[in-house]
Amino acid sequence: MNTLKKDQLLQYTREVEETVYSFLPEEAGPQKTIFEAMNYSVKAGGKRLRPLLMREVYRLFGGKGDAIGPMMAAIEMIHTSSLIHDDLPCMDNDEYRRGKKTTWAVYGYDMAVLAGDALLMYAVETASKAFDKTEDAKRVGECIRILSERTGIYGMIGGQTVDVEMTGRPLKRETLDFIYRLKTGALLEASMRIGAVMAGASEEDCERVRDMALAVGLAFQIQDDILDVTSSQEVLGKPVLSDEKNNKTTYVSLEGIGKAREDVKALSEKAIRILKELPGSNVFLEDLIRMLVYREK
Amino acid sequence: MNTLKKDQLLQYTREVEETVYSFLPEEAGPQKTIFEAMNYSVKAGGKRLRPLLMREVYRLFGGKGDAIGPMMAAIEMIHTSSLIHDDLPCMDNDEYRRGKKTTWAVYGYDMAVLAGDALLMYAVETASKAFDKTEDAKRVGECIRILSERTGIYGMIGGQTVDVEMTGRPLKRETLDFIYRLKTGALLEASMRIGAVMAGASEEDCERVRDMALAVGLAFQIQDDILDVTSSQEVLGKPVLSDEKNNKTTYVSLEGIGKAREDVKALSEKAIRILKELPGSNVFLEDLIRMLVYREK
Repeated sequence: MNTLKKDQLLQYTREVEETVYSFLPEEAGPQKTIFEAMNYSVKAGGKRLRPLLMREVYRLFGGKGDAIGPMMAAIEMIHTSSLIHDDLPCMDNDEYRRGKKTTWAVYGYDMAVLAGDALLMYAVETASKAFDKTEDAKRVGECIRILSERTGIYGMIGGQTVDVEMTGRPLKRETLDFIYRLKTGALLEASMRIGAVMAGASEEDCERVRDMALAVGLAFQIQDDILDVTSSQEVLGKPVLSDEKNNKTTYVSLEGIGKAREDVKALSEKAIRILKELPGSNVFLEDLIRMLVYREK
Repeated sequence: MNTLKKDQLLQYTREVEETVYSFLPEEAGPQKTIFEAMNYSVKAGGKRLRPLLMREVYRLFGGKGDAIGPMMAAIEMIHTSSLIHDDLPCMDNDEYRRGKKTTWAVYGYDMAVLAGDALLMYAVETASKAFDKTEDAKRVGECIRILSERTGIYGMIGGQTVDVEMTGRPLKRETLDFIYRLKTGALLEASMRIGAVMAGASEEDCERVRDMALAVGLAFQIQDDILDVTSSQEVLGKPVLSDEKNNKTTYVSLEGIGKAREDVKALSEKAIRILKELPGSNVFLEDLIRMLVYREK
């Protein structure tokens, strides 16, 4: 990625972050602590991929104005909620994430459970604010349906459950695919589909966006597995070869590095091909997808 | 309450329960365990007050058909989610509820966190099914907004946060009111308001329903405090004088039993007065409110 593109990515990420932050609760009132814990967790950083992808798909279909804002904030809140609960002592027991103390390490175990719950529900409350920003209540309703379905037991939370249950056990390809599609793929899919629906894309185009998102999500995951084998701690900012150490079944351990690389290439080409067939054009989105898939960290 | 009324209450509770159960997930697929944990928790019993109140307010305003069903299931799922997380070791650390093992005691700490998350989000997913059952998307949107707002940080979860933070510390009347209004009151309020909105009640009548719900919610809580002082373990099915033992500030400890009784009476009279001024009539709802407020357990 050249410097110009990197600058644009930085700027867009900042813009998206600003939108997300504008929906966070004011830290006042008797329940101040939960507001602080929520805001701390959302502001702890991250690539802001989901709201970024959502906004760019929205723009691709000619979406204008701020009706997409509440949905962008909602998807990032849900993502953050999942990180808070993932880090809990009864789950991954992580005290640090991205070099910062995790929510439970700062606010306590009980407050972290509540902060995760709070962000999950505040995401829906925030998404509901889109009803005030467009006359098309059906469109907003459809997005809330996608958001809740792709977050819930047939989406992210469902994938997380299977991942937790299978920890330390060897996985079949089928189960690995299931976890990848749901645990990380589902929210990426929701991000892009909501962008399309909010912009008023046709049902057919929304289907295509879904196929594109599924390809991006899977390529993203496989690349993650590849980097764990091929990168260094300096570049990645976290320990490498961790999957092998933890006896974790990955795409690379099942299929080998060669096939993994081929599949990333095929999936990203598929995603770009679908993108180019869609009406409208968004060069940044194309770059973003390539960057996600071929990233070095 | 005479036998005839008790029979009717039992029958209605069974009907409401059937509706709620019809929306529970099928226990199949890789994420079977989470489905089982969710269903176990919802089926563990309870008065089903929230969906019952919702349905009766819906009927009061002439609501017909099954559009209210998804909302009834949603509110009970949210209530159940809050119980699962309340019982966790990091919160109340309860191994039993209503004589049955709590969710974490059966399915483990991690699965209980996930089951609570799952029910919270599946409630929204279920509520979204109402979009298929009515042409009025705005009405459903308004109900999802009420549901998420009254569940979230300005509702149930907000109240729960303050309750957890203030544990073991003496409360001022102001803080006690805040906790009562939010922790238990908010979902009772949501139940009744959603019943009204889904039936197409006027905005003015929805406001009245809210006032009625606030009075019922507060009276319900104060009666809880009274029973802890005046009832016996045999009648209540749980230890009495627990608030005193736990140094818990209650309405009774702050205002005395005499004033507490007067206020329950005044609040329930207020609720019944508002109910009688509303268009339509629902004798069962009137009985239900009296029963809730003057209950002996």
